[in-house]
Amino acid sequence: MIVIKIGGSVVDGLHPSTLADIKAITEKDKLVFVHGGGKEVTATATKLGKEQKFIVSPGGVRSRYTDKETADIYTMVMSGKINKAITGMLLRQGIKAVGIAGIDGGILKAERKKKLLIINEKGRKMMIDGGYTGKINAVDPALVHNLVDNGFVPVVSPIALSEEYDFLNVDGDRAAAYVAGGVKADKVIFITNVNGLILNEKLVTAMTLEQAKAALPKIGFGMEKKVLACTEALEMGVKEAIIASGQVENPISSAIAHNNCTVITPK
Amino acid sequence: MIVIKIGGSVVDGLHPSTLADIKAITEKDKLVFVHGGGKEVTATATKLGKEQKFIVSPGGVRSRYTDKETADIYTMVMSGKINKAITGMLLRQGIKAVGIAGIDGGILKAERKKKLLIINEKGRKMMIDGGYTGKINAVDPALVHNLVDNGFVPVVSPIALSEEYDFLNVDGDRAAAYVAGGVKADKVIFITNVNGLILNEKLVTAMTLEQAKAALPKIGFGMEKKVLACTEALEMGVKEAIIASGQVENPISSAIAHNNCTVITPK
Repeated sequence: MIVIKIGGSVVDGLHPSTLADIKAITEKDKLVFVHGGGKEVTATATKLGKEQKFIVSPGGVRSRYTDKETADIYTMVMSGKINKAITGMLLRQGIKAVGIAGIDGGILKAERKKKLLIINEKGRKMMIDGGYTGKINAVDPALVHNLVDNGFVPVVSPIALSEEYDFLNVDGDRAAAYVAGGVKADKVIFITNVNGLILNEKLVTAMTLEQAKAALPKIGFGMEKKVLACTEALEMGVKEAIIASGQVENPISSAIAHNNCTVITPK
Repeated sequence: MIVIKIGGSVVDGLHPSTLADIKAITEKDKLVFVHGGGKEVTATATKLGKEQKFIVSPGGVRSRYTDKETADIYTMVMSGKINKAITGMLLRQGIKAVGIAGIDGGILKAERKKKLLIINEKGRKMMIDGGYTGKINAVDPALVHNLVDNGFVPVVSPIALSEEYDFLNVDGDRAAAYVAGGVKADKVIFITNVNGLILNEKLVTAMTLEQAKAALPKIGFGMEKKVLACTEALEMGVKEAIIASGQVENPISSAIAHNNCTVITPK
């Protein structure tokens, strides 16, 4: 099984050959998609008159502050708009896609962050209520297994259930890592807009889990999150984690063939 | 298998015992939910600055006019908001609910209405473009069977795929009838806010398919649509169609027991 993480602005930026490439791969492999879509959430929230607030961690990481209203909009846009748009694109290719959320069948469980340490406008550290974001702490792979074993291609939105059954906003890259780990996927592929991890101005084509973990502090935000997700997936038993561009011809086959991308392996 | 149609404003109007009732039934029967949610679509569309337009048929039936933008909002609210709210409520009861849309796995196919005959503001008949509404013409029951056979409870939103893979707004009652027909359900239950069909000021407790068809022209809009959906389900092989109130104690068990509701059977 291969878990593929794609962004939310699906049509933009993906090579026109992508859907035919995916279709060809479904004929020999079992696929699961996990998507993001933060930009679209912000756009719809703004239209609904709910300006999105972004917070900055002491480490300089900027992220959405998810209060209850934002969590509701996040769920609606991720699962009702982006998820169905991707599912529709796949169905149009004759792929038996099924759009679900991470909450469906209890796939993703997460722990709600009770407090968040942020840097406020005055540059001072400050504790605020954690809102509705979470760190995934358990995966129930039954629904995903059940779908792929019966010829369906699940498309999963990054929403997890808290212990109190709240819907939590979880990071798409890490959701993909946990889904891949939970189903014991052979590979997890992070499709992005660059070829892979660049270190010292060079594309890193191969790396071990240990090397990736050691490199983490040197990697800029965005890519750092993808490399972190790769390490998490490998630590959960996935055999190979790949970061690759979606802008090249047949991007998924190309990543599987290790063409011009970053491949991280346990050893 | 039992297919249950519920409205979109789920919490409002349902008896507080409903979720425990559903939980008890899942322990002995296979359940599938199909929901509506038109009011919520209108509310969110209005918030997004997209006023909803309603049209009136020559027969006096008022319905939403679904242009492309409305179809997108309809999909987002139905599948991302209402569907996930219902799924979340069931998950909280320990039910393995899976929220999907009628498009997922190609469950519901519909024919786009190319033209609509309406009565315009001047009271004159007028042909307009059909927009994105459809009449269901095929059901692929594979995904629903697959989910229920593996212990999941599907929650289906009323969206169908056109031949051109557009997403079409379809009526929730008729979507429930087609899902029930497609999976050859034993029963389809329409949960509403009255006890059932009232004719000559009396609740009709039992009716045959033929009697129901004959009664259709005498029934007011809303209830007429439910009775029509019942007849469609029975004609597709469902053994029993029930219209019952959601406001009584244990509403689903009560409907199954034929307490104070309308039961329509093939003969």
